[in-house]
Amino acid sequence: MNTWVTENQTSGLRISFRIREILASEVSEFQRIDIYRTESHGRLMMLDDVVMLTEKDEFLYHEMIAHVPMCVHPDPKRVLVIGGGDGGTIREIARHPEVDEITIVEIDGRVVELSREYLPFVGCGFDDARVQLHVDDGIRFIQDHKDAFDVIFIDSTDPVAFAEGLFHTDFYTNVRDALRENGIMVAQTEFPLLLPDTVREIHTALKQVFPVSRMYTGYVSTYPTGLWSYAFASKGPDPLKDFKPERADRMRGTLKYYSADIHRAAFALPPFIQELV
Amino acid sequence: MNTWVTENQTSGLRISFRIREILASEVSEFQRIDIYRTESHGRLMMLDDVVMLTEKDEFLYHEMIAHVPMCVHPDPKRVLVIGGGDGGTIREIARHPEVDEITIVEIDGRVVELSREYLPFVGCGFDDARVQLHVDDGIRFIQDHKDAFDVIFIDSTDPVAFAEGLFHTDFYTNVRDALRENGIMVAQTEFPLLLPDTVREIHTALKQVFPVSRMYTGYVSTYPTGLWSYAFASKGPDPLKDFKPERADRMRGTLKYYSADIHRAAFALPPFIQELV
Repeated sequence: MNTWVTENQTSGLRISFRIREILASEVSEFQRIDIYRTESHGRLMMLDDVVMLTEKDEFLYHEMIAHVPMCVHPDPKRVLVIGGGDGGTIREIARHPEVDEITIVEIDGRVVELSREYLPFVGCGFDDARVQLHVDDGIRFIQDHKDAFDVIFIDSTDPVAFAEGLFHTDFYTNVRDALRENGIMVAQTEFPLLLPDTVREIHTALKQVFPVSRMYTGYVSTYPTGLWSYAFASKGPDPLKDFKPERADRMRGTLKYYSADIHRAAFALPPFIQELV
Repeated sequence: MNTWVTENQTSGLRISFRIREILASEVSEFQRIDIYRTESHGRLMMLDDVVMLTEKDEFLYHEMIAHVPMCVHPDPKRVLVIGGGDGGTIREIARHPEVDEITIVEIDGRVVELSREYLPFVGCGFDDARVQLHVDDGIRFIQDHKDAFDVIFIDSTDPVAFAEGLFHTDFYTNVRDALRENGIMVAQTEFPLLLPDTVREIHTALKQVFPVSRMYTGYVSTYPTGLWSYAFASKGPDPLKDFKPERADRMRGTLKYYSADIHRAAFALPPFIQELV
């Protein structure tokens, strides 16, 4: 079958997957949602024609966004995820026995429903008894919560349309105020090789709001350039000095990307990225 | 201009670049050679329709293949590059004042000529007075040289057609015998996420031939999956214990990807790669 789905990653760069089947295709209140079965990457979900995850490589992203802060915070009991409606990030967070409550605020309930139906490898994240799902706007939700969470994850789509407000100083200030003492925020922050200005702006904003602000990187093979960046910002904990490698070690044999060595390596930034932060 | 050039990275995965101009397009004795000016990645060279380098991200590959062994070998005076006819690897090797002679053996003289004409940012590598170019078959060349080089780089195309022999035990044995005491070989060894068997076979072969054999990884945004692997094999030197960070530090301000921190981080392998080696 010579049928291909293509993402225009930038105006000059495309990635295409050979597909075998269209499993779901609809337009929700917020976005276009398409789920495919591909030849080489298992199942694939696209939102507004942008790759969100593939079965083959979603572990690269979800392990790196989840475990870095979870292996640093002294006692992460109450956790909030904004976005992440596919369930992959909460699947990883749930591996940590310290966690009592996982609140997830996803704006588009159809992403959750379709993931649970067609992408069970991530949708299974919602099965954990500690998970509470709110189908709501994360920007509004965070304004209503002060001093409430230990770790907050911004697991968003790209900074356009309804997700655009998730990348600004006002939002980060509300995130900081929603964190308890020792609180940590982690966010996906796009690809430095082709979007250096976006990455620089995000980190400039974070530095104004948080006393500790660092960038780390990880491979995500199906995201633009393969070289993804994440922000680690906190009210105190340092991602290296306060790292608890025993938490990484106890997941050995379960994880495919994250480890204690990878945690430390992820904060080694190449010079061309270092100059952005 | 809505004109695109596409690489079929696997049977199920494609990458495409919007092009503005075709600068060169010919069939040499060995392969098809095409050089484009792209919208987002500057100049692009493809060999047999596979991306070899782009102006935008070639530094990721060339800095990582060149500087890792050059910052480990105790006294790298005589260096050999097999392949690498674009000039990017020798451009990086030439940054090391320890080097007296850089021998490069490229099978296809047209790659060298076209790179010097259309890709001066890498082709400039041939301008260094220490460089001696041999247009010859690397497999044959290495058989005729014993105990001759301190560092040997296998900067080849993928393991198909005339490059296939560069990935086998017989060849690695000849490379070992061409190395002097303390000699180091570095090779590009493809993408572990989608070619785990290839990567495993290469490393199994290397372990049979060399007393020290390690894998490291680096981003190459325009190669398949963005997650590239390299082999470090030696007659003695260890890539971490014998690392000389002062050599990395003296290139600070010049390099965009490699640094002492990146050197160490590159050997931190994710569990899914660790199990291949």
